[in-house]
Amino acid sequence: MKIGYLGPPGTYCQEAMEVFCQKKEYYKPVQFPSIYDALNAVCCRSVDHVVVPIENSIEGSVNATLDFLAENTELKIKGEIILPISHTLVIKSDTNIQDIELILSHPQALAQCSKYLHERFRGIMTRVALSTAEAAREVAESEGKWAAVANSRVTDIYNLKIADANIQDGLNNVTRFIVVSLEDNKRTGKDKTSIVFSAEDKPGSLYRILDIFNLWDINLTKIESRPAKNELGKYIFFVDFEGHRNEQDIKDALTMVNRKTSIFRIIGSYPCLN
Amino acid sequence: MKIGYLGPPGTYCQEAMEVFCQKKEYYKPVQFPSIYDALNAVCCRSVDHVVVPIENSIEGSVNATLDFLAENTELKIKGEIILPISHTLVIKSDTNIQDIELILSHPQALAQCSKYLHERFRGIMTRVALSTAEAAREVAESEGKWAAVANSRVTDIYNLKIADANIQDGLNNVTRFIVVSLEDNKRTGKDKTSIVFSAEDKPGSLYRILDIFNLWDINLTKIESRPAKNELGKYIFFVDFEGHRNEQDIKDALTMVNRKTSIFRIIGSYPCLN
Repeated sequence: MKIGYLGPPGTYCQEAMEVFCQKKEYYKPVQFPSIYDALNAVCCRSVDHVVVPIENSIEGSVNATLDFLAENTELKIKGEIILPISHTLVIKSDTNIQDIELILSHPQALAQCSKYLHERFRGIMTRVALSTAEAAREVAESEGKWAAVANSRVTDIYNLKIADANIQDGLNNVTRFIVVSLEDNKRTGKDKTSIVFSAEDKPGSLYRILDIFNLWDINLTKIESRPAKNELGKYIFFVDFEGHRNEQDIKDALTMVNRKTSIFRIIGSYPCLN
Repeated sequence: MKIGYLGPPGTYCQEAMEVFCQKKEYYKPVQFPSIYDALNAVCCRSVDHVVVPIENSIEGSVNATLDFLAENTELKIKGEIILPISHTLVIKSDTNIQDIELILSHPQALAQCSKYLHERFRGIMTRVALSTAEAAREVAESEGKWAAVANSRVTDIYNLKIADANIQDGLNNVTRFIVVSLEDNKRTGKDKTSIVFSAEDKPGSLYRILDIFNLWDINLTKIESRPAKNELGKYIFFVDFEGHRNEQDIKDALTMVNRKTSIFRIIGSYPCLN
């Protein structure tokens, strides 16, 4: 069974994938250079599952993942992994921290350390890379005095050293990863369901949809808006709630939500972690 | 009167600032290298107003602006400008489009053109710049075969040529800019108010707040969630609605919202554009 992740080796996503696989040997990891390529591999059936980030407690939603899930109706969320994120600043063994000329990382990682970078490295250029581990690899191969913001596990893989640790803003930095497949998960008794819908273009339409969840006593655990991409001020909503889509109450409520929305899709039901 | 914008000259933000100033000579434009520096200049009273982007119809909210407004309670929104965005790919006059080796732009602009870049320039490196115009300036000064995604007005400023025009994804790409100051706007009769609040950590708490707006017949024009930054699954909400904060109905409703929320702040009332 092939399982994709956002590579190269050393990413937080690889760590999340390993948590999901729990060292079971029938999972064969496959790395992808971008979220688009990873999710697309499931659509093309070239892998069975992929693990991609969906939400970070500091920087918010991962837009590339949400947008792909909204547009590709055959994909389902099969599970989730919540990983504490502790960023380190890594450099080559012959670089001094005060000589750093350029800092590379994934845009979300740079954003999660923006206060630190602003205070400690004001005026030093930053540059984005496709992933934190890709940034580390670029630093290892560069001839300049570069640094990367990455998972500390990259130091072994790319022969780098830690210049500073725990550099993220805020105390509670965790990322939620999801396992995406063509099928979601069976009922376990403690489940969560993700849906996406567009509220109608009328005042109070979002309120009326939340009203349905309230009537059926369904607990929402997340609500996120994304632009509908056709007009400013039009949104689609990603909502997570407790319960499995095969429970009768949930089925009834979702039938009602479906009636009140122009776009409606169940992205999947899967075991709830907390 | 000094008015700041996200520079250098040639940005969409400069264009929005010029729309707001309508060629009145008492506005003296001042450029800033980042959203953080621009908004901070209002806090430090070194400028009177600043114009910054807040939302794009394709890529969604500008996180840096929302996060700064959530944290800096003295700032108020004084007005808004809605600007149609048409991205162009610009290169030096001696570069051919098929030889492009690297594409630079602001992360939002790159994201807004992601389908185009994926289809036409698959495998070509992209790099982020602080703004679209800064990307154009870097291209003009580089020795490599670089390109920038920017406003077409940069071609005159930095002596570049257009390689391709209208390269953004989707048909309806507009950005909403806001004018931020220490005071908001007087009542005009057709106003909009922006607030930020955190829903309590109870099921249905967002629903109960939207219920208040429903009771008072207040039309919401926008709802956006951002992570509360202390725990995954906790959110703050940015809501825009029709009406001025000095109208009695709005006052009454907001008194109620204030009671039901732990964090609550009026970011400003200002003339409604549409």
